[in-house]
Parts: sequence; C-alpha cells; structure tokens
Amino acid sequence: MPKHPDPSRRSERSRQAILDAARELVSEVGYGKVSIEAIAARAGVGKQTIYRWWRSKGAVIFDAFLALSEAEEGGMALPDTGDIEADLKLVMRATVAEFADPAFEGPIRALNTEIINDPDLAAQYRERLATPVDEAKKARLRSAQRAGQLAADLDLGLALELLYAPLFQRWLHRSGPLTPEYADALVDLFLKAARPA
Amino acid sequence: MPKHPDPSRRSERSRQAILDAARELVSEVGYGKVSIEAIAARAGVGKQTIYRWWRSKGAVIFDAFLALSEAEEGGMALPDTGDIEADLKLVMRATVAEFADPAFEGPIRALNTEIINDPDLAAQYRERLATPVDEAKKARLRSAQRAGQLAADLDLGLALELLYAPLFQRWLHRSGPLTPEYADALVDLFLKAARPA
Repeated sequence: MPKHPDPSRRSERSRQAILDAARELVSEVGYGKVSIEAIAARAGVGKQTIYRWWRSKGAVIFDAFLALSEAEEGGMALPDTGDIEADLKLVMRATVAEFADPAFEGPIRALNTEIINDPDLAAQYRERLATPVDEAKKARLRSAQRAGQLAADLDLGLALELLYAPLFQRWLHRSGPLTPEYADALVDLFLKAARPA
Repeated sequence: MPKHPDPSRRSERSRQAILDAARELVSEVGYGKVSIEAIAARAGVGKQTIYRWWRSKGAVIFDAFLALSEAEEGGMALPDTGDIEADLKLVMRATVAEFADPAFEGPIRALNTEIINDPDLAAQYRERLATPVDEAKKARLRSAQRAGQLAADLDLGLALELLYAPLFQRWLHRSGPLTPEYADALVDLFLKAARPA
C-alpha cells in the first residue's frame, strides 16, 4: 500500500478509482499504451494525485494487480481436508482457470512484462506478493509432510517451483492448453516427485 | 531465415551485420530503447535494407536471438552416455550457466518481453525455436525410456515442462540463485517424478 497523507474516505475513493482505471485500461489497450494521463482521466483525478502516491506507471499497475489478487484470494490459506492430492488438484484447477480467464490475463501479462525488465519491481513482486503466497502454500505442504503424505526431506521452495512454474511458462508462452486435465496431470507428476520414497 | 532476393556474399554480410547490431543494442540499452534506425546505423545499412528482410523490430531481434542460439548449440542433440542422470545434470548445469551469463541475459529477456505480448511472435517462437529444441530433448528422454531409466508411460511434453520451467521462472523473476547445485537439485527431483515406479 502506498502511504497517503490524508486517509479520509474521499482519498480512499480516489485511490480505488485510480486502481480500477489502471486495471481496466491495461485490459483494454495493453500495458504499453496505458499512460498516467489516461489513468487520471478515467479515474476523474488529476495527474498529481497519482504521482503523490505512486512513482511510476509500473507502480500503479502493480498495486492495481495486487489489489485484485488480495480481493480474489480472500485470505491466502490453501484448503486442508487432510488429502494432499485432492487439495492440490482443487487449487491447481482453480489456478489454471484463473490464468485462462481474460479478466486476469491482461494485468498479469502487464505485470510480468514489467518485472522481466525491472529488477526493482521484481524484488517488490517477490516481497509483497510472491513470498506471502508461497508461505501459505508451504504451510499446506508442511501439513502434508506431518501427515506422511510428502517426503520429510522435500525442499519446499523447489517443490513449489516444480508445481507452479510449468503452468506459468505454458501460460506465458501460450505453448499448450490450460485445462482441468492439465492441472490434474501436473499434480500427479508433482506428487510422484514429492511423495515419501 | 528471412527470404532475401539477392543471396550474394555482400547481402549475407549485411544480414549478419544487422543481426549483430540488433543483439549488441539490445544488450546495451534494452529492448524498449532499440529502434530500427539505430540498428541500421550500427550495421552501416539503410533502414530499407532491414525492412526488405524483416517486418518489424521484434522480427529482427527474434532472428538475432535465433542465430545466437543456433551458433551456440552447434546441433541440438543432447549427450547420450547411457546414464540419464549424468547427462541431464551436464545439460542443466550448462543451461543454468547460460541463463546466468550477461551476454545471453539481454537478448533472452528482450525475446520474452516480446512473446508475452505478441501471440504471433509466440507462435513463431514455438514453431522455429522451442519445438525443434524440445524434439531433441524428447529424443534423449525416449532413449532413457528404452533403457528402462525413465517410466515408459511418462508424458514427455509435461516432463520437459517440469524439468525446464522452474529454471525459466526463477531466472525470469530473479527469485533465486542460478548455480550448479540448483541444476543438480532440479534434476534429482525431476528424476524422482520420471523414474519407473
């Protein structure tokens, strides 16, 4: 969250309008063509209002994306029914569906375009978004380790890369279909690697 | 390769100079700031010479990258000593080192920035670069299946995603170190998933 000196309701409404405008414009015209001017016009605020809270276009769009992610997840904990296979298939089917959804598509591509080329934004992304989400995922894997469903010596960071990176790359390069069957096959192969020997 | 009407030595020299200029400029100033004008000036050719062979900046840089990859690989076949673990560790250590090399870094990031946002270029990338390379990798996995070192029913496309996507994502998001130890750990976990049951 950016610091803003006046945390009144009016200020919060402006902030929300700016984030909504940023997200809509990215989806409509693509990251490259969005300008601070267009965001300000759409949100009904002056450019200076945006620059008071954010240092760049990339920073606004990053917060717009972060707000979306927070609203969607409603708490980051993964389901824990005691069955790691069922829980991971549920989560990965939902994640695949999210990547295949045009409403997410635009902002997530815009964010990735930025973080590829901006090491500072990549660091912000890790700290503010990726790391908290990864910790929630690791908590579920740890619970499965305690239940004897995953190997006790599994490297959880590497395990998360094995589970999520294939989907991310397939989506980014548009190199294959994003289907429930794909989610299931990915979880099955992941579990072969992650189960106790 | 672009079609060019005059396949003389002079024409080939111009083409090479353009590809070299494109690669150098991307590494020096980043994809966003490279222009067709700057490539033409650096290569000592006119803009029209570039537009005769390529339809866009993205297309020139794509070919520059492709030429680099072809020169580096010198044939795409993976080593086959009969030991899939040793061969994959050799290949993945080399691949990790390549991603960590600043000389590759610039062009590969530029290429990925383009293919994220340009579905046509993504399709070209799959057809001209990813698919031939994947076929060479699959040939090595098939040889290991015949030797009983990998499961006979392993889905080779999914297996390649599991092996390469974690490295790709870690590099793209700068989310962890790219070391020989990482390459080995990735191959070890991959093989747990891929070995016969």
